[in-house]
This record gives sequence, C-alpha cells and structure tokens, in this order.
Amino acid sequence: MKLLRQVPKILFGAGAFDSLGEAVSTLKNSGYAVYIIDAVHAKTGLVNKLPLVGNDYSLSVDTTDEPTTDGVDALRDEIKKRSDKLPAVIVGVGGGSTLDIAKAVSVVLTNPGSSRDYQGWELVKNAPIPKVGVPTLSGTGSEATRTAVLTSPGKKFGINSPYSLFDLVVLDPLLARTVPAEQQFYTGMDCYIHCVESINGSFKDKLITVYVQAGLAMCRDIFLKGGEPSDQDRENLMIASYFGGLSIANSEVGVCHALSYGLSLELKFHHGLANCIAFNQLEEYYPNEVSDFKEMLERNNIVLPKNVTQAVSAEQMESMIAMTLLMEKPLTNALGPDWKNVFPREKILQLYARM
Amino acid sequence: MKLLRQVPKILFGAGAFDSLGEAVSTLKNSGYAVYIIDAVHAKTGLVNKLPLVGNDYSLSVDTTDEPTTDGVDALRDEIKKRSDKLPAVIVGVGGGSTLDIAKAVSVVLTNPGSSRDYQGWELVKNAPIPKVGVPTLSGTGSEATRTAVLTSPGKKFGINSPYSLFDLVVLDPLLARTVPAEQQFYTGMDCYIHCVESINGSFKDKLITVYVQAGLAMCRDIFLKGGEPSDQDRENLMIASYFGGLSIANSEVGVCHALSYGLSLELKFHHGLANCIAFNQLEEYYPNEVSDFKEMLERNNIVLPKNVTQAVSAEQMESMIAMTLLMEKPLTNALGPDWKNVFPREKILQLYARM
Repeated sequence: MKLLRQVPKILFGAGAFDSLGEAVSTLKNSGYAVYIIDAVHAKTGLVNKLPLVGNDYSLSVDTTDEPTTDGVDALRDEIKKRSDKLPAVIVGVGGGSTLDIAKAVSVVLTNPGSSRDYQGWELVKNAPIPKVGVPTLSGTGSEATRTAVLTSPGKKFGINSPYSLFDLVVLDPLLARTVPAEQQFYTGMDCYIHCVESINGSFKDKLITVYVQAGLAMCRDIFLKGGEPSDQDRENLMIASYFGGLSIANSEVGVCHALSYGLSLELKFHHGLANCIAFNQLEEYYPNEVSDFKEMLERNNIVLPKNVTQAVSAEQMESMIAMTLLMEKPLTNALGPDWKNVFPREKILQLYARM
Repeated sequence: MKLLRQVPKILFGAGAFDSLGEAVSTLKNSGYAVYIIDAVHAKTGLVNKLPLVGNDYSLSVDTTDEPTTDGVDALRDEIKKRSDKLPAVIVGVGGGSTLDIAKAVSVVLTNPGSSRDYQGWELVKNAPIPKVGVPTLSGTGSEATRTAVLTSPGKKFGINSPYSLFDLVVLDPLLARTVPAEQQFYTGMDCYIHCVESINGSFKDKLITVYVQAGLAMCRDIFLKGGEPSDQDRENLMIASYFGGLSIANSEVGVCHALSYGLSLELKFHHGLANCIAFNQLEEYYPNEVSDFKEMLERNNIVLPKNVTQAVSAEQMESMIAMTLLMEKPLTNALGPDWKNVFPREKILQLYARM
C-alpha cells in the first residue's frame, strides 16, 4: 500500500509568519511550545519575532555542520531538564537542518533511547509531540517529508516515519529574504535535484509527476535566469521546495543523493553543496538536467570546489563507498533492481575520484 | 489566518481500490465501518467488491436527485438504529453527491440536531467519525474539500467545516471506467469551472494558482480532444478533480456556481449539468474559457438543454435569485466587494432568462 502522506495544514503566503502564534496556539491545549531556531536568526533578528507567550521558550541551534543524533539527543535532554512537563508543540524555524532537528526532537521526546535508534524505516513506536515547520530557506523539502536526516557515527540516514511529518507548515517567502545568494543556490539545487531524481526514477506515479513537473519548471525559471531572486522567485521556490519534498516523499531520490551522502559524511559538506558537487559529474545518468545545471552554475556565478576527494584517505573513501551502498532504495529507484551490478564499488570510486 | 487544509493521506493509482480494506482498517481501532455507496454500483458490481469484514456493512444511496439534509438525517437514524455503538469509520464510494453525503453523515453522527443546522461556516462543534472518500466519478473535487453541499427547503448550501474533510481518499482511476461519457463530461466540467472561477477570482494565492494551472491544463487536454476518455485521461481527470477541489477549498468559486445553485434548487438539475447550462451564458465574465467550453461541447457531441427557465413560475424565479444572492463569498471572489452593485437582481434575472 503506497500511501501519500501530506502535511494536513499549510499557512501560505507573504506575511504568513504573522499568524504563526495563532496557528501554534491551536495545537497547544494549554501546554507550552518550544521553538527550535537556527542560530543565524540571532543575526537576522527573526529570533526576536517569535510569538512566545506564557511558558514558551526558544532554543538556538548551530547548523554549521549537518545535524547529528548526538545533537538531537542533547536538545531532548535540555528540554526535559527544563520542565517535568513535556512541551505541547515543537516549532522548527530555519533551513532543512533545523527542520530535521525539530522533527527528530519531537520523536525522541516521546520515544526511549537515542535518536540513532530510529534511523531507518518505520522504527518509531510512540506518537510524537505535535510539530510545526517554518522554513526560512527553500529547497530541502523537509517541510513536506516524513524524513529527518541525521548523521550518527559512520552513517547519514533518515528517521523515516509518519511520526516525522509536520502537523502544520508555514510557507512565508519573505522569511527567505535574508538568505545569502550562494546558499540559496545550493539549497535550491537540492530541490532541482529532488525533482530530477524523482522524474527519472521508476518509483514515481502520475500524481507525483504533476508535482515534479511544476517544481522543475519553477526551478528552471529561477536558476536559468540567474541573479538575485525577486520576492516572486522566492515564493515560487518555496512552492517548488514543498513540491520537490512531496515528490521524493512518495517516490525516491537517486544516484546524486546516494553519492552526496558520502561527501557529507566524511568531508562535512552541507547537503546542498554536496549534491551540487556530485550532480556535476552525473551526465551519464541525467544528461539534459546536468547540462542545464552547468548553465545554472554559470548564470549564477557559482564556482564549485574542485578535487574535493583528492586528499581523502583510503579509509575515508571506504566509508563513503559503504555509505553509498547503503542507499538501496534511491539506487533501485534510479537504476532498477539490478543496481548492484550496474553500479559496483569501482564505479562509485571512479565517480567520487572525479569530484 | 488563511489555512489550507489538505486530506492527510492519499492512496493513488490504478488498482489503489484493492488496498481500501487495509487503509480502512488503520482507522478502525477494533470498531466497524459503514460504507455509503451510490446505488448505481449495484449495476456496476462495485458493491460486491467492498472489503467488508466483521460488523462492517454498506448502505446504498440513490443520487438521482442531489443530496438533501433530510436524506442525510435519515441515514444517520438508520445507522444509529442498527447499533448502539457508533461506527469507527464512514466510507463514501461514489460521485460528489455520495461523497458529500458521507461527509455530512460523519458529522451528524456526533453532533445533535439536523444536518441542516450545520449548513454554513464553522458551525460543527464535535469531532466527527473518521471518514474515507472513494470517488468513482471525477470532477466535483469533493474528495479534496471541507464542504458537504446539501439541499434543505429553500436552500442549497454547504456544511463548511474542518470536520467535513476526509481523513483519507482513494484515487483509483479504474473506478471511473463505468461512468457514461455524457455524465463524465458534465462532472468533468465541474472541475474545469472550479479552476476557471478560482484563477479568475481575487481570493487565489500563488500556491493555489499552481494547482489550478495544472488542473486546467489537464481538463483542456482531455475535453478539447473529445471522444471516449482513455485510462490515462481518467487518471489525469482524477488528479485534476482533486486539484480543482483543493483550489476552491482555499479560494472560492464564482459567478457560475452562484447561478447554478439556483438551477439545482428549483429545477433539480444535477450540479455538473446546472454548471454547464449557466457557464454557457457567461462570456461576459469568462470570455476565453466560455469559448473553449463551447468547443468542448462540440468535440464531445454534447447538446445542452435549452430554455430551461422558460416555464419557471415567478415564485420559483424569486427563489433562484434569492439563492444566487446568498452566494456572497463566490460573488465577492468573482466581482469584488462591490458585487451587489455590479450584479443586481435584474442582471441575475436576465442571465437566468437566457438559459
């Protein structure tokens, strides 16, 4: 049974953030909310605009590196230390890292052990704390998916569970105004690549294809044009990100994500940049889309880091290859059930060596 | 706060109906399900394929006329008479009439009084019985909306409530194979007109516009081509219907629906046909779309009834005009806050007289 699970409530549009407090209050039942917000918003000032009332409080998270299971567990401990009473709502405010942290925290607050115990599929047993997602950077699609991607020792892997899905998301394109252009490019490419991998894979269906086509068209429009995005571009990219997330939620990613996870795991590249470095070498799998991507790089004056795997140790490379080989579903989606034969470790090594 | 509420779970694709039993069981909690199915499916045989288990049973509904509040109340009484224990799930299987009946029954089973007490906005107080929608005819969008449209004496009006939204819908295009071509045309035009009214109104936002554009393109593709729809067309129309529903759920209908409700109320025309009769006279409001519509009529060999209001009594016409003037939200969406001046009763009378 292939069920598409959707975020049941979306607050959309320029200025939607102003209704965040009202929206959160509908989930509170006389409890309190914990806001988890990217530390960057101390600088942008957004942290001062959070609609805190009563016993609500906010926790700032540093997303310089990608989120880890240890980091999520520490946040859970901090929240439990502050009060004997669990929060009624968790609100994540930031990019994909922050949203994934908020999703994972909502799960481990009501499930025993470490968040690393839930990396995998359908491992979460208890209902989570209700949660709200407020993306301030578009592209990852985390706002739409039932996945919270975390790194634990030797593994980058999602908590894949219906309990990881947000109960409500706020899509306010004005929140993305503070994103630096280069970061918006890399994260926007995550959306573009989600759409590319979904539409070229075998897991998609017609409903998903409609979302992907709309998302792809918006990404092309924004990034082939190049330059500083307008508010209209930001609005489109926020929709594209949501559609791209919905698409992979009900199909899968592909070769690019299988390789980019290895780059992030060992070389600490952020997901969007890691995707770009990997995708740039994948003409063989996505010829037209990689060609468009190279044009997008040019139009947006983006120069990707080169030879990033040159100084990698043999042990690190082994870990990266092992990571890629763990990505069975994406590789099946992209290459078919016979993927182990058409995508052996030598091929993976060869592709990594080119990056 | 303009909140888009979406059906949280969608089971999509050819053959999805085979997983209906499994999907319903996830909502049962050891209770039983009541299936409400259009009487036409005694003929198509679908009634024999319902996945009844344990204490589940099905009730057949006659949708020759549009659903009424009395009919919904009678179904509620029947269900309560059969058992002291309320059902755990209501499953609606049929076109928009049947889906609306299922939605309304789920509400009145847990709320006192008559279903007519809830026609309006946000009048439902108690949480309803969980419900599943299985459209077997595409176009109305009822599967996507928080509206259950019912006729009570002198009024055709929706129960508009978050409690009217399905918890799960099954979109299986193969179920629409048994629909006669003419009926599929009229109901498909309901979707086309939803999209036209949404995109030409002032209530839409960019997210809704993306859905509408996709829905419109699919309707144009299917109905400007004409002829017996293929399975692929049916799949597209099922998606378009869902998108069209989602669109009006978060924007509004317009002039056509405001007039068509009057035709259904007094002349008993089914909603899809009533929409077509009204839309055919609305070049003034939707010039390009009405021109396309006339071509769709031709390509699909549809001849609309003429002079349908000729024999209408003065009293009936008064009732129809009063009905139209009740449609404040759609008319504001279409014509602006000043709609009472630009769309006075003489104008309404003139339009009805032409139909």
